[in-house]
Amino acid sequence: MQRIGEPVVERGVCEQRFDVECQGRRVPALLWTREGGGEAPLVLLGHGGSLHKRADYILATARRLVRHHGVSALAIDGPGHGERRADGGSDPQAAGRDFEKSWQRPETSDETIADWKAALDAVEREVGTGPVGYFGLSMGTMMGLPLIAAEPRIRAAVLGLMGTWGPNAARLREDAPRLACPVRFLVQWDDEIVPRQHVLELFDLVGSARKSLRAHPGVHVAVPPAEMRDVADFLAAHLKDL
Amino acid sequence: MQRIGEPVVERGVCEQRFDVECQGRRVPALLWTREGGGEAPLVLLGHGGSLHKRADYILATARRLVRHHGVSALAIDGPGHGERRADGGSDPQAAGRDFEKSWQRPETSDETIADWKAALDAVEREVGTGPVGYFGLSMGTMMGLPLIAAEPRIRAAVLGLMGTWGPNAARLREDAPRLACPVRFLVQWDDEIVPRQHVLELFDLVGSARKSLRAHPGVHVAVPPAEMRDVADFLAAHLKDL
Repeated sequence: MQRIGEPVVERGVCEQRFDVECQGRRVPALLWTREGGGEAPLVLLGHGGSLHKRADYILATARRLVRHHGVSALAIDGPGHGERRADGGSDPQAAGRDFEKSWQRPETSDETIADWKAALDAVEREVGTGPVGYFGLSMGTMMGLPLIAAEPRIRAAVLGLMGTWGPNAARLREDAPRLACPVRFLVQWDDEIVPRQHVLELFDLVGSARKSLRAHPGVHVAVPPAEMRDVADFLAAHLKDL
Repeated sequence: MQRIGEPVVERGVCEQRFDVECQGRRVPALLWTREGGGEAPLVLLGHGGSLHKRADYILATARRLVRHHGVSALAIDGPGHGERRADGGSDPQAAGRDFEKSWQRPETSDETIADWKAALDAVEREVGTGPVGYFGLSMGTMMGLPLIAAEPRIRAAVLGLMGTWGPNAARLREDAPRLACPVRFLVQWDDEIVPRQHVLELFDLVGSARKSLRAHPGVHVAVPPAEMRDVADFLAAHLKDL
């Protein structure tokens, strides 16, 4: 873990920028912990396509986890996103245009799993963690679902806004039945990006006995604020019961 | 309202059996209120097919509404069910066999709306109520969805385990777009009675902007206990905000 800059503390939340090296790749990451630290459950936060590790809803979820539940949070920039881009991820439209390109190599999914594991290993080594959860919607599910299938440390997850669709569809279809932890799956009923039938099909394939689906009207990005806040509460409740 | 017997009080919940007359029909009903009474929001509880107004989950929801939230509850026996049967509803298998027969007359849906309105009128006249909610799964949705479309006093609902299916399908399809209040819709992903595609289609037709769907794995009757408890909490929260 190569710390970048000093930790920034805001209303009890300590935010530390760091990099990890993984298979020759530099993985930009952020860690949020309680001021004063100490071992705690950890939630991995996977951002959506065209966004980055400090997107508004990622930051809000991280702060809610730390402040309301004493749970730490870790985010990385996904492949071809955020600080991995020449423009630093400052232009979401440019990142959106490059979305397909970011996932066009078949190795991308395995490399992303390795990146997450490297970041998680670094955090466990340096600050310790308890049980681990995962939250990621849309591209966050493209990154996270194969990770959860490969990573027994992850014990609860919130996924969604993704289906048997897009550049990682075959892998999602293959890995979904391997999921065994509790999974909450969010669906936007009028999703204009990922067709509803593909989203429902991916939920159907998830192997966990303790899975549940929550759907709301509206377009891809219009998940109701109360449902977004409940993500942190759901994961914290599950991780604290372990 | 013709009271039948004395009210029974158990751990703060007063339960009163009564009948109302409606278009020549005797409608058997139960009212649960806080001991000591007073105006309060009211939730109508519509039981499922083969069951009756005091089925276990109806009684548990009524008691939770009163004890946790100070919200009253009202249940009636549906058409051809409970005390409307010669056997008094004591044999769910016999009632189940007669389920289709109970709904075979095209007038049944309108008569059931009238029965509910008569019971609600009687309760409002005699004990007063605040805002009104509705909870009914399976046949409880067959009874309740057309009622909600016809009854502006109902301001929030939990429905589900029903689709564009069964003896009242045409009416459900017709009335669903008229719903305007917040609706939570429960789905059992492996429903062996009502095919999933018909359940999702009915949710799709519900006109409310504030609708949401919650699905869990398992058969028709296997709604998780935590989700069943949350029904009372959801309705009470909505009715108290009005």
